[in-house]
Amino acid sequence: MISFKNAFDHVLRHTPDFGNETVALTHSTGRILDEDVRADRDFPPFHRSTKDGIALAFSAVERGENRFKLEGVLSAGMPQKTLSSDHNCLEIMTGAVLPKGADTIVMYEEIEIHDGWATLTKTPKKGQNIHRQGSDEQEGAILLKKGSLISAAVIGVLASVGKTEVSVKKLPEICVVSTGNELVEVNEKPLPHQIRKSNVLSLASALEKVGITPSLLHLADEKNSIETKLAEALLTHDILMLSGGVSKGKFDFIPEALEALGVEKIFHRVAQRPGKPFWFGIQKEKQKIVFSFPGNPVSTFANYHVYFLPWLNKCLTLEPQRQTVVLEAPLDPHPSLTLFVQVTVKWDQGQTLARPIKGNGSGDLVSLAQADGFVCVPVGDKEIAKGSVLDFFQAS
Amino acid sequence: MISFKNAFDHVLRHTPDFGNETVALTHSTGRILDEDVRADRDFPPFHRSTKDGIALAFSAVERGENRFKLEGVLSAGMPQKTLSSDHNCLEIMTGAVLPKGADTIVMYEEIEIHDGWATLTKTPKKGQNIHRQGSDEQEGAILLKKGSLISAAVIGVLASVGKTEVSVKKLPEICVVSTGNELVEVNEKPLPHQIRKSNVLSLASALEKVGITPSLLHLADEKNSIETKLAEALLTHDILMLSGGVSKGKFDFIPEALEALGVEKIFHRVAQRPGKPFWFGIQKEKQKIVFSFPGNPVSTFANYHVYFLPWLNKCLTLEPQRQTVVLEAPLDPHPSLTLFVQVTVKWDQGQTLARPIKGNGSGDLVSLAQADGFVCVPVGDKEIAKGSVLDFFQAS
Repeated sequence: MISFKNAFDHVLRHTPDFGNETVALTHSTGRILDEDVRADRDFPPFHRSTKDGIALAFSAVERGENRFKLEGVLSAGMPQKTLSSDHNCLEIMTGAVLPKGADTIVMYEEIEIHDGWATLTKTPKKGQNIHRQGSDEQEGAILLKKGSLISAAVIGVLASVGKTEVSVKKLPEICVVSTGNELVEVNEKPLPHQIRKSNVLSLASALEKVGITPSLLHLADEKNSIETKLAEALLTHDILMLSGGVSKGKFDFIPEALEALGVEKIFHRVAQRPGKPFWFGIQKEKQKIVFSFPGNPVSTFANYHVYFLPWLNKCLTLEPQRQTVVLEAPLDPHPSLTLFVQVTVKWDQGQTLARPIKGNGSGDLVSLAQADGFVCVPVGDKEIAKGSVLDFFQAS
Repeated sequence: MISFKNAFDHVLRHTPDFGNETVALTHSTGRILDEDVRADRDFPPFHRSTKDGIALAFSAVERGENRFKLEGVLSAGMPQKTLSSDHNCLEIMTGAVLPKGADTIVMYEEIEIHDGWATLTKTPKKGQNIHRQGSDEQEGAILLKKGSLISAAVIGVLASVGKTEVSVKKLPEICVVSTGNELVEVNEKPLPHQIRKSNVLSLASALEKVGITPSLLHLADEKNSIETKLAEALLTHDILMLSGGVSKGKFDFIPEALEALGVEKIFHRVAQRPGKPFWFGIQKEKQKIVFSFPGNPVSTFANYHVYFLPWLNKCLTLEPQRQTVVLEAPLDPHPSLTLFVQVTVKWDQGQTLARPIKGNGSGDLVSLAQADGFVCVPVGDKEIAKGSVLDFFQAS
């Protein structure tokens, strides 16, 4: 049995690069950019009016003029015009191109218009209300770096430089595997000794949030079919994510089958609760990775968040995010196990406060549904006081 | 011009219920339950072993016996068996049904097995290692309340009670409308005075994260076509979300067109930056709502997060979530405008720290792509000190 820290370090040492692929801009939200994105022209591409009003030449104001003849109207989308004389002005709308010969924009609130003439009611500043060409970014500048997460705002930048397609980090192909003869499908009525599959659906839902649609596979407790099916799943996926089948029981043929398939055990059993019988292995030759989580819901769910998500983020070259919370009630550590305790959290005065949930052990799916995540309680023998800061793993 | 608080209250006073619909369990992640979900049987449904080991009758241990004849093996998925004598025991795997006649489970680590006999190496406690029938929830109990957000863990609960389909709150049908002759499509090469559409793609990406796939519509600056197209969009959608077209300019025909279509202006212009020319209206008769955001990227994006998301959550009966952060650098308020300042955030010691981004005004899409969200800076005239707590709107 190894420590949580050891297990975590082992997992994060095996983070393959799954390559890249090109996807449509409209399907790229949440993905990781695999290219630098540059400005295809200046941002903004022209001196752009930021107000509705009039464009004029400041030289006239300096000479003391404050009444200008209107010679036309410019709106966004019109090609650049020219102000024919600095005694005149042009009406200009937000987003329109500053006309040649003008250098200052005065908004409607600061002028009066009568009979084709605009009179200033407030003295403008030279150059005001213009979003200057190239002032945000110059042509050729890197706007988005390789490795950026594609957020809604990033989509806006990509659209503005004409990227209808983007190169993104490929996500791993994952097969989520349920095990055990006690499981029946969701649409079946279980006999008294049976239960419906729930872990794999929960994992599929969590994976959906990181953009991955896994395959689902079920293994009954039969040695031969287990090996055949696992071999096939390993061929067609990067990652196997198993739920159940790695405890010490007589019918747990899976570790054996995996080793027969060339998957090397990196560790089995971690000094943690829940999730002690976690088995982690790799098939070196083909860079396949197997996360084999214990079968009960809370263990599987905790391990997914504690190990798999940081692993995935590292594979995708995302910066690790260490989230911490403040305990709202004391917690007892375990003398030899790292604990992952279900909590609800709330925000208060800039702090995130975590309150432990009284669950009924690692089989209690219902209390899990109320949790916002898990706090990590290090091994120890002294009560962890209210107000202490702990690492937090947010539930999907 | 009304205050931010007033505008916000107005928006939250118009939160229709969009009804419900039935969706497949596998498509329900992120939706809001519109039914109470009850346990269809006890949770767990039988006395369930939580360890791999042996099942025995504690009465024998009380009599001083510590050696038991193995009479078989029970695994998860087998119907309940009976222990024939309290001198004997049955091997039992995690998840299996406790046999009749047994009441205690001893794990392999605390026994030795030789020649078909198990010898206890540690005295068990009566009833240990059993997850008792109904101890999590009893048949008929409400496991999930109407109004719950369907998280990955909730999916597990729904699966376990056999809900292949669930009743969820319907999401509004939204039409995202771009306006202005200066806009060209993402795949087009803009002329010097043109720019590519970006706001509507940004909004569509943000909406995708709340499960909504909007229609997209573009309105050129032509009075007649604007009214026809808006009429059609209003007929077929619950919500119009416009970007641009509501400032004071000569070519902004939209407020007029909306009023002609029976959309009543609730307010226009809010004492805030960015996003001052925000226009909000409703068509009372048919409960249609129009969010008309200013056309520049930062204004649209800020308004979406500040107004639309809380509005949507209220429509869906979700509890309002007030997030707060601690300022890492001082900020100057505005004497008469509420400011929404772009920030990056990081977690530290249970606190969320926010650092303002030096952006280049409301047209700067690139700085927006670096922001984690906006802090709300109330109207005022004194510097807001480092360490102050401000409301926070997280970017999608």
